[in-house]
Amino acid sequence: MAGSNGSATGDLKSQFLKVYSVLKSELLEDPAFEFTDDARQWVNRMLDYNVPGGKLNRGLSVIDSYKLLKEGQDLSEDEIFLASVLGWCIEWLQAYFLVLDDIMDNSHTRRGQPCWFRVEKVGLIAANDGVLLRNHIPRILKKHFRGKPYYVDLLELFNEVEFQTASGQMLDLITTLDGEKDLAKYKLAVHRRIVQYKTAYYSFYIPVACALLMAGENLDDHVLVKNVLIEMGVYFQVQDDFLDCFGAPEVIGKIGTDIEDFKCSWLVVQALDRVNEDQKKILYENYGKVDPDCVAKIKALYDELDLKAVFEEYESTSHKKLISSIEEHPSKAVQAVLKSFLGKIYKRQK
Amino acid sequence: MAGSNGSATGDLKSQFLKVYSVLKSELLEDPAFEFTDDARQWVNRMLDYNVPGGKLNRGLSVIDSYKLLKEGQDLSEDEIFLASVLGWCIEWLQAYFLVLDDIMDNSHTRRGQPCWFRVEKVGLIAANDGVLLRNHIPRILKKHFRGKPYYVDLLELFNEVEFQTASGQMLDLITTLDGEKDLAKYKLAVHRRIVQYKTAYYSFYIPVACALLMAGENLDDHVLVKNVLIEMGVYFQVQDDFLDCFGAPEVIGKIGTDIEDFKCSWLVVQALDRVNEDQKKILYENYGKVDPDCVAKIKALYDELDLKAVFEEYESTSHKKLISSIEEHPSKAVQAVLKSFLGKIYKRQK
Repeated sequence: MAGSNGSATGDLKSQFLKVYSVLKSELLEDPAFEFTDDARQWVNRMLDYNVPGGKLNRGLSVIDSYKLLKEGQDLSEDEIFLASVLGWCIEWLQAYFLVLDDIMDNSHTRRGQPCWFRVEKVGLIAANDGVLLRNHIPRILKKHFRGKPYYVDLLELFNEVEFQTASGQMLDLITTLDGEKDLAKYKLAVHRRIVQYKTAYYSFYIPVACALLMAGENLDDHVLVKNVLIEMGVYFQVQDDFLDCFGAPEVIGKIGTDIEDFKCSWLVVQALDRVNEDQKKILYENYGKVDPDCVAKIKALYDELDLKAVFEEYESTSHKKLISSIEEHPSKAVQAVLKSFLGKIYKRQK
Repeated sequence: MAGSNGSATGDLKSQFLKVYSVLKSELLEDPAFEFTDDARQWVNRMLDYNVPGGKLNRGLSVIDSYKLLKEGQDLSEDEIFLASVLGWCIEWLQAYFLVLDDIMDNSHTRRGQPCWFRVEKVGLIAANDGVLLRNHIPRILKKHFRGKPYYVDLLELFNEVEFQTASGQMLDLITTLDGEKDLAKYKLAVHRRIVQYKTAYYSFYIPVACALLMAGENLDDHVLVKNVLIEMGVYFQVQDDFLDCFGAPEVIGKIGTDIEDFKCSWLVVQALDRVNEDQKKILYENYGKVDPDCVAKIKALYDELDLKAVFEEYESTSHKKLISSIEEHPSKAVQAVLKSFLGKIYKRQK
């Protein structure tokens, strides 16, 4: 998710980072485990390497959303702190997924540095570190939310979203299984299901759901909010797929490899929907190959099929639909939360 | 943990396995995820491969313990079912740890078959499967315990024990870090801490804790029970370390490799405590080498130091201490639970 800029944001971010330090100190003194110095040092380094180095948009958006839900009211320091704690729980969740995904994908870099499992002396210990990251979430929730009326709902929310994300990851992995590379399986419904489960719940739904729980809401009353956020998550991932191929590497900060990796990208799904027999042959023969000539042929085909225009049409239609869904919501405060999310991603270039 | 035998046990086990089938069916229809046929098939096979194939002692002991706690009272079918469900949650937890541990240790076989990550087409998808196994536990708990007064306690129990196990695993991994092989670090306190966290909580404490919660007890009132079970877990692991070197491979079902693997085994810790300068040199020069001559030299040294007698002394002292701790407990029913556990492992040969 693209964040807004400016000095106010910078200040928010530094406040947010202070909460990280508090949580880390608490975890390193957790009485449920007798730390040795070596163990404490290991966890300290592992957390600093993997948790706070991202854009922090997921975490920060819990605070943003909570503020919008409590429109006009002054928030206490305690409320800001608790919203920040929930934001960090989402960042911890993200770190856990990334550490394990990088092992599974055999990736090289992440956030501009080597993946954790590639760091000297770490190796596959990283898998257990991923598990530790995940285990920190209920430790944090217990410490700060145990007495709250929504404590069980928080535990269940994090459990459900983690389950959905892992299920989406499974779908992605078994769809892209090596040795069974078959473009015939790549349909829009398949793409949507992977994206919905693998990305949308934990990137879009959970930050708002956390803010709603803190505001005393029952999540069962907010199916519309959930559906809109899932739609936004899908839209966000379609942008991601588009930018992977058509974005400027110097702007998006990486060189896309979806074509080489035989990814079930929104672009290849759209291409498959539009090809004639000759074009289909080109697609089947060149998709998923590392050879730059093959990649170039795919990109030329995407141009021939005018997928840029298809994407622009999609972007504009999605935006209209999302706005009209949002405006169906009875609460102006909730509308503001959802519009703020949408505003951050509409027509993003990175 | 060694189980008891006989036809009554066989019947219990087959009843217990029926509950597995129920839980699996529920998970494969979990409404929180839209399964495709491929996804359902994958999870089905993954569960059958990894969850029910062990000795099931951890799971079965929840039912045993609950029966002993409710001494004399007839248990309803529902109670037996719920105790079995908790038993299976522990088996799921165990499966999750084993799938990930085998990846980290680069192991070959598990329970007489190739490790899951070595199965064709699985590979590192196994890491995500491990995560899925872990995620099934709160799904099962939510479905069957949501309305119970001890629901939050169950969630917290599983969270805490998982955290402790992962922390113990971390200790083990960073203590045995390749490239830093240093016997000087191997002290009894180090051995104990690893064993306590990595094994005792999830193998000994959690089954009884589950039974106590079902019986309406508050776990904070049962610190003695916890301490006794942790002691038993340590004792169990010392036996394991002893059998790895001195057990009959045809009885224990595997060939031990703790010496080759530079493990922080109870035996090497005891040896380090007893060696003279010459013997210490032998230990340092030969421990952690795959060469059978080196292994033989270590074993000869263990014999020279009479570690078998040291172990027998330890076994008998531990047993006495455990019995006297157990008899301090005011409840005969709780005593029966703890003595039943101890009886299953005392002087075990496998």
